[in-house]
Amino acid sequence: MLYFENDYSEGAHEKILKRLYETNMEKLPGYGMDRYSASAKEKIRKSCGALEADIYFLTGGTQTNKTVIAGILRPYEGVVAAVTGHVSVHEAGAIENSGHKVLGILEEQGKLSASAVRTYLETFYGDENHEHMVFPGMVYISHPTEYGTLYTKRELEELSAVCREYGIPLYMDGARLGYGLACPETDVTLRDVAALCDVFYIGGTKVGALSGEAVVFPRNNAPAHFLTMVKQNGALSAKGRLNGIQFDVLFTDGLYLEISRNAIETAEALREILREKGYRFYLENPTNQIFVVLENEQMERLRKEVVFSFWEKLDESHTVVRFATSWATRMEDVKALEKLL
Amino acid sequence: MLYFENDYSEGAHEKILKRLYETNMEKLPGYGMDRYSASAKEKIRKSCGALEADIYFLTGGTQTNKTVIAGILRPYEGVVAAVTGHVSVHEAGAIENSGHKVLGILEEQGKLSASAVRTYLETFYGDENHEHMVFPGMVYISHPTEYGTLYTKRELEELSAVCREYGIPLYMDGARLGYGLACPETDVTLRDVAALCDVFYIGGTKVGALSGEAVVFPRNNAPAHFLTMVKQNGALSAKGRLNGIQFDVLFTDGLYLEISRNAIETAEALREILREKGYRFYLENPTNQIFVVLENEQMERLRKEVVFSFWEKLDESHTVVRFATSWATRMEDVKALEKLL
Amino acid sequence: MLYFENDYSEGAHEKILKRLYETNMEKLPGYGMDRYSASAKEKIRKSCGALEADIYFLTGGTQTNKTVIAGILRPYEGVVAAVTGHVSVHEAGAIENSGHKVLGILEEQGKLSASAVRTYLETFYGDENHEHMVFPGMVYISHPTEYGTLYTKRELEELSAVCREYGIPLYMDGARLGYGLACPETDVTLRDVAALCDVFYIGGTKVGALSGEAVVFPRNNAPAHFLTMVKQNGALSAKGRLNGIQFDVLFTDGLYLEISRNAIETAEALREILREKGYRFYLENPTNQIFVVLENEQMERLRKEVVFSFWEKLDESHTVVRFATSWATRMEDVKALEKLL
Amino acid sequence: MLYFENDYSEGAHEKILKRLYETNMEKLPGYGMDRYSASAKEKIRKSCGALEADIYFLTGGTQTNKTVIAGILRPYEGVVAAVTGHVSVHEAGAIENSGHKVLGILEEQGKLSASAVRTYLETFYGDENHEHMVFPGMVYISHPTEYGTLYTKRELEELSAVCREYGIPLYMDGARLGYGLACPETDVTLRDVAALCDVFYIGGTKVGALSGEAVVFPRNNAPAHFLTMVKQNGALSAKGRLNGIQFDVLFTDGLYLEISRNAIETAEALREILREKGYRFYLENPTNQIFVVLENEQMERLRKEVVFSFWEKLDESHTVVRFATSWATRMEDVKALEKLL
Repeated sequence: MLYFENDYSEGAHEKILKRLYETNMEKLPGYGMDRYSASAKEKIRKSCGALEADIYFLTGGTQTNKTVIAGILRPYEGVVAAVTGHVSVHEAGAIENSGHKVLGILEEQGKLSASAVRTYLETFYGDENHEHMVFPGMVYISHPTEYGTLYTKRELEELSAVCREYGIPLYMDGARLGYGLACPETDVTLRDVAALCDVFYIGGTKVGALSGEAVVFPRNNAPAHFLTMVKQNGALSAKGRLNGIQFDVLFTDGLYLEISRNAIETAEALREILREKGYRFYLENPTNQIFVVLENEQMERLRKEVVFSFWEKLDESHTVVRFATSWATRMEDVKALEKLL
Repeated sequence: MLYFENDYSEGAHEKILKRLYETNMEKLPGYGMDRYSASAKEKIRKSCGALEADIYFLTGGTQTNKTVIAGILRPYEGVVAAVTGHVSVHEAGAIENSGHKVLGILEEQGKLSASAVRTYLETFYGDENHEHMVFPGMVYISHPTEYGTLYTKRELEELSAVCREYGIPLYMDGARLGYGLACPETDVTLRDVAALCDVFYIGGTKVGALSGEAVVFPRNNAPAHFLTMVKQNGALSAKGRLNGIQFDVLFTDGLYLEISRNAIETAEALREILREKGYRFYLENPTNQIFVVLENEQMERLRKEVVFSFWEKLDESHTVVRFATSWATRMEDVKALEKLL
Repeated sequence: MLYFENDYSEGAHEKILKRLYETNMEKLPGYGMDRYSASAKEKIRKSCGALEADIYFLTGGTQTNKTVIAGILRPYEGVVAAVTGHVSVHEAGAIENSGHKVLGILEEQGKLSASAVRTYLETFYGDENHEHMVFPGMVYISHPTEYGTLYTKRELEELSAVCREYGIPLYMDGARLGYGLACPETDVTLRDVAALCDVFYIGGTKVGALSGEAVVFPRNNAPAHFLTMVKQNGALSAKGRLNGIQFDVLFTDGLYLEISRNAIETAEALREILREKGYRFYLENPTNQIFVVLENEQMERLRKEVVFSFWEKLDESHTVVRFATSWATRMEDVKALEKLL
Repeated sequence: MLYFENDYSEGAHEKILKRLYETNMEKLPGYGMDRYSASAKEKIRKSCGALEADIYFLTGGTQTNKTVIAGILRPYEGVVAAVTGHVSVHEAGAIENSGHKVLGILEEQGKLSASAVRTYLETFYGDENHEHMVFPGMVYISHPTEYGTLYTKRELEELSAVCREYGIPLYMDGARLGYGLACPETDVTLRDVAALCDVFYIGGTKVGALSGEAVVFPRNNAPAHFLTMVKQNGALSAKGRLNGIQFDVLFTDGLYLEISRNAIETAEALREILREKGYRFYLENPTNQIFVVLENEQMERLRKEVVFSFWEKLDESHTVVRFATSWATRMEDVKALEKLL
């Protein structure tokens, strides 16, 4: 069986496991006060060019989104997000559970445009009844998006400019940030992200770690007592070393980007194969998720030998499916898939 | 430096790390749908004598308490707990953040008595204004308690009987459950816990795992769509294998109890030393936490060579401190401590 | 100055004020336990043909929607509503503040169709990832809608059928219910509403009362301890007599429908005038709200002598405005407006 | 039957009803934007000596407490209150429902002392684990308290000083504020309250209004967008005139204090009677609530002719009951009661 189901099918990069082994019996303080967490934060600060950054390690994407958003907003505020955003659809209402509305706006292939955000804000403040409505209190984007698409640096600058004009933070969900940064096409660096966003997280779970997301407030701008809110959201690990050590390894000698590149290269190879064989792409993107339209019978046939994701029904006889590569995908598996396509 | 600070100072039991290594590159489905999670659940069911049990793996104690309590209660209900209970004081208001009051009642050395619970319930329903008050919707106990004390089987039976009489679930926080079950003094088995509680969790983080708590609804009695509520609380791991593999190892060949016994034996040895040397115990308990009264100067002296926890100020010149042992404590460290005492 | 701004510009119907006066110094128990509340409930039960109905008096629409919705849903559920529904846009996020997502779906002139609801439900349950999404736990409709439109009996039957098929309650926001029931065009009676909905409220604030909404669970189907949840939502009046007396008057000798008819007749007269004068209606509806497209300069001119509501900008030179009549609108004011149009 | 059950048994002071009548058909804007609300606010500002005060009219005590507390606190904060405080016990968990813990501390006859608050704050910040605990974010007091007791000006100054030292607001629940201010014994004026508290409310429901509480932020210090939070809590009346007119009347020519005095005088007369007849007071207080210990048989006998409140069981044969007077109590009823005692 070949696996292209998602980017969290394997455990962790072997260097991470090795380091967990080596450090296993060291006695370390809990709750992220250990030296490995400190070292990881320092390395991340340097990579971000944000030496004053406040950094917190949490354990999963939904948890991180909920904690960050609820930690920043006031009760009368909601978060502006694409209607296709992870917080809008696939977090079981975690944001609303924290008391805040997700203010969904239309997107293009998963991306929010600065002009759509501006229009939303202008319309809101222009509405005579806006005091009876939920105030837009921050803007959420994902990069790569849920469709694997990427913002350009220019687009991020424009989004950032609108947010700053209105005095609301720009938050980037970087569950797959590595796969975005490692794309040859992108002109966005981690430093750009840190300069343009007010808070973002660097995803570990989907990029080589067993678990773990690093939340970065790049300008020493974490809300007061954010640690207590992390605890309140059930997101503070007693064995903080687990996240700390993993990020320390990922940010040593550029490992995070290096392993991300493998996902991009294998995805690119698979994309090339699909293109040659005349497959129809549901949409184009340069990262590790490939959305293809399959004829239903063909899909069923393929399913017997390959694991991939159902995305959505396109019409009676066609289905959109997703092939995902990851830090762990081997080129030989791409080649094996080629034979089946 | 000697470490007796807590029971989560090290990483994981070596068998766990070894198994993570061996299984690392297996491609497994996410969100706990993997074979190791299934195997772990089956082993836990057998250990509990609860073949119909619904089991979920979460990642930390506060997260678990919040998810379970909020998942069971209706909005008009709160949870009855000892005023010293973890949910009452040390979870940063996680329960209230989910909308529910912790109804604190007085305890004895961390334990709730059935008669105190009964009195609370009788008084509540006897109050003509009780419809203007928070209904007691479940009872929370910890075992061992925050003071390391244990319920007897008889005490659990009585608590269970009161809860059943009033139709409210009894929930046991088993963050350190192994250390309770491994005590020679206890007459409470895991089967008793499963028979007498309506939901409980088996703690992994403090008993040899990197992270992970196993929530058990012993009679197929999980609330509808509990998985969705786990997700909503940010407690559903994409790489569910991490928790699954760890519990699979812990529940193979009795490892969970075996490593718990080490904590009890080293604690007992240390207790004996303290007793011989005439130290005053703040309270007596048979598990892995030892609460001792130190004279302040002595405490400061000791602190230079031993890490332990400040518990509370007793009077101007004395302090209560805690020494904790764990699955990882070595007898040689106890002996080294003996020389310093 | 002429006033067609809304349907809550005046105080209360004079019979209500008179009754408040007459009963003012009677000593009555609080919290709705008084005889007038009991009498009002009995009259409403009869009007609804629902002799087993549970009835609660609350004080405003948003409060009522929040209390009912939060009182019914489980944490993993949200409420399906039109994207234009009051709960979706004009309640300052009250529903989300209670922890629940409003699942907005497209509407036609404010109305949800049974087929749109069915498609939503089918798509939801057909989605392989639906356990990571918010479950549709009830359906919210308003009648009349925010656009003054009405459901036919057939449409309500279809909606009710879908809801029952999926086992989720149908909730009707009847802030302006009287104005719907009093329309000559409608084939929907209060008995139909009670038979087809699982919970609804009869609006008082906009239909002749100083304040007050009557929540009806027509088949003795209020959630357990709903009174406590009313209290918890700050919606339980100490002087419950205020709501009780008002509804007792409104449901004596058909006053509620009688005064509603005045709004419909004056609206119909105004509509006729507008039609004759060639005004363009933004949409057609048979109730007390009239949505008209005005050329901007004309609007500004009119504003000097008439108070009406801005609804939305149509294009650069045109605006949609709303004229509302009510139980208190006098035909002579309609005639005065005629001269200005 | 004689009624001494509570202070909300009657409707409204006749001047209020009269004014509602006179203004009934005036067409006024909704949501508190009417001229009577403006006038009432101006009068309250003057009475408070707080010309910059932000004032909002809400509709009941629990609603007001919930809206104010949730509107001020950050998620990691709770409210310090007496364990006997209304927010602690008799609001059905409204505060917790908004996500915040009520941090109960011991009181003396319903009063919090500055020293108890200081100790709480010092202990909290002195605890090494306080970042895992709920931060004390404001202090709640009621004046008169639930036991009818009053703070002295000195006591309020001390409480205010502690709060300011720690940078947390002092909030006074004034559900019965009039009855406190009208006591001959008190040295606390409304100006003192405005000077020493950061937010408080002037109760209408229990002091002559049909409903209504006036929230005062005396130094233009309402939280941003408090109106939106009032709406979100279901506490914004469409017919804001109802509250506005009532408070406008209550604050014209000193009516609020004048009618409060009646409650105090009748209470004092009743107290004198009870004293002479040798009744035992459960506690002493100078306001409109009288707590007396009755022998159970005597209580049952009295119940046949007098309505009063059960307070609590004292022992097997004695019960604490409450007699309450109000703005509406007539001296002749006190005399009639005298004969029965």
